[in-house]
Amino acid sequence: MNQKSVEDIPDIADIHLAQARIRARVRMTPVINDSGLDHALGCRMYCKCENLQRTGAFKFRGASNAIARLREDGTAGDVATHSSGNHGAALALAARLDGRTAHVVMPENSSRMKIEAVREYGGRIHFCAPTNDARAAELEKLVAAGMIPIHPYDNADIIAGQGTAALELQQAVPALEQVITPIGGGGLISGTAIATRAWGVAVYGVEPEGAADTLASLQRGAIVASFNPDTIADGLRAIVGQRNFRVIREQVRQVLTVSDDEIREAMTLAWHTLRLLIEPSSATVIAAVRNHPELFGGRKVGAIISGGNIDPEDWLALTRRGSGSA
Amino acid sequence: MNQKSVEDIPDIADIHLAQARIRARVRMTPVINDSGLDHALGCRMYCKCENLQRTGAFKFRGASNAIARLREDGTAGDVATHSSGNHGAALALAARLDGRTAHVVMPENSSRMKIEAVREYGGRIHFCAPTNDARAAELEKLVAAGMIPIHPYDNADIIAGQGTAALELQQAVPALEQVITPIGGGGLISGTAIATRAWGVAVYGVEPEGAADTLASLQRGAIVASFNPDTIADGLRAIVGQRNFRVIREQVRQVLTVSDDEIREAMTLAWHTLRLLIEPSSATVIAAVRNHPELFGGRKVGAIISGGNIDPEDWLALTRRGSGSA
Repeated sequence: MNQKSVEDIPDIADIHLAQARIRARVRMTPVINDSGLDHALGCRMYCKCENLQRTGAFKFRGASNAIARLREDGTAGDVATHSSGNHGAALALAARLDGRTAHVVMPENSSRMKIEAVREYGGRIHFCAPTNDARAAELEKLVAAGMIPIHPYDNADIIAGQGTAALELQQAVPALEQVITPIGGGGLISGTAIATRAWGVAVYGVEPEGAADTLASLQRGAIVASFNPDTIADGLRAIVGQRNFRVIREQVRQVLTVSDDEIREAMTLAWHTLRLLIEPSSATVIAAVRNHPELFGGRKVGAIISGGNIDPEDWLALTRRGSGSA
Repeated sequence: MNQKSVEDIPDIADIHLAQARIRARVRMTPVINDSGLDHALGCRMYCKCENLQRTGAFKFRGASNAIARLREDGTAGDVATHSSGNHGAALALAARLDGRTAHVVMPENSSRMKIEAVREYGGRIHFCAPTNDARAAELEKLVAAGMIPIHPYDNADIIAGQGTAALELQQAVPALEQVITPIGGGGLISGTAIATRAWGVAVYGVEPEGAADTLASLQRGAIVASFNPDTIADGLRAIVGQRNFRVIREQVRQVLTVSDDEIREAMTLAWHTLRLLIEPSSATVIAAVRNHPELFGGRKVGAIISGGNIDPEDWLALTRRGSGSA
């Protein structure tokens, strides 16, 4: 989708422009520091709560920026994407607020909650078999019918939009030494790295052990062709994008991994200290900071809490199992 | 406790002083407006999220102000209170941060979560039989031993501290037409009424149908002597205080009531739209606004979301039953 060259990577100016462009639509999410969480992690942790963003995830930033760019360029028409998760809902709302419709290709086994979210925000769902080929074919049909494709992460406007979360975080908290975000397709981490580069902040990314394709790609020097994700962090199962990988390779200090059990414990810790129910993907950053006192101990750390779209019942089922198996 | 005259009621200057006094300790909680919630309620709703306050409730504001006043006055020593809920945990943390210990009289049937919270924040618990007499006797013993009593709501410093939430809300959102808060003992609503009086904002209070002692007291013209609360909103079972009742009678536009089933539905709505798990007491304001379009329809309404201290398992049990019986 968005077949531009891989050179098409945003810079800090693009992120500032994105911030101005989406300001009226995107929620200025809170940054929360909690002494109980600090105590548990052994550092000063500033959580940028994108779980409280509209549509429940940072994805609304990138989607809003991509839609606003279409309007600026005078490009009319509906948009299309594939997503089994938060990008679909985010694009649906961003499109609707601009008088467009988002068509979202979703695997037929997507969760009920995620299907409902896309519908609720006015998106049109096109179900497909749960394979990459089926998904690509269905999306191609929509594009052939004239819809504008918006890739969930391998897209310069999406990356610039996601970078606005880190920009706000820095504007709210002076002198952060480190920033950490999860890595799925790499939209959030690449935007974050670009947004914070000028400030000399060390950027860390986190993947679940069962979806560590970015780490494998870094070790290999090129994006792995395919992998079979196996993790409870459903938002982090995607394979890293071209633009995203390039930014990560050049600008991210280190990619860390965490186990599913560590993620479960971090979800419980986040509830206990922050009173926030967060999805497994979000909890990876807390788990990683906890795992690595040699990196984060005593530091002033910014963390992007990426999303909160988890059914409370599922949250309970996951964390209960965690406390049993920990 | 704090046996001063009933005339000892704070004014707006006291609330501004409280704000300056507690600023470094209290979290500036976010104000969230959500288009989905607005749609469901038919108004513009600005939620001041005190569920994200330290200790998970607005109570930390009043407790911090009361402790800071002791320090200003040069009064050394430990503090004592009775609370089966959020005030105990809040006072424990506020005292600990000031190098004091809080002694909290709690009924022996208090919830495990609330007992743990008081302990976690360094409070010393004194269990008593679950009756008013036992509670008063136990507290008297502590005061006789030299401890300084801090009443949960019928106390000028507590009221002034609770009023800072509404002050921040107004500072964040210009031109609110109405503000609504729950009523338990009346600390929050009285502080809110005093804080917002100069702005010409209409203040509404909400009680559960099963704990509508304030409404009964208003109708009677004097505080009811006793009543037996029966509601899931465990934070709102207290009987209204003297100072609090006086402020409510003079400055609150109207006291509304909501049923437990309406509270359950509002808890679900808050999760669905705001991605916040809130305790039943907090959900009363959402339920009341939903019930009364003739009062709130089309208005710009501020609501204090008072606390988030509910076990996710209990949240699920309450809201599940709600969706069945609604």
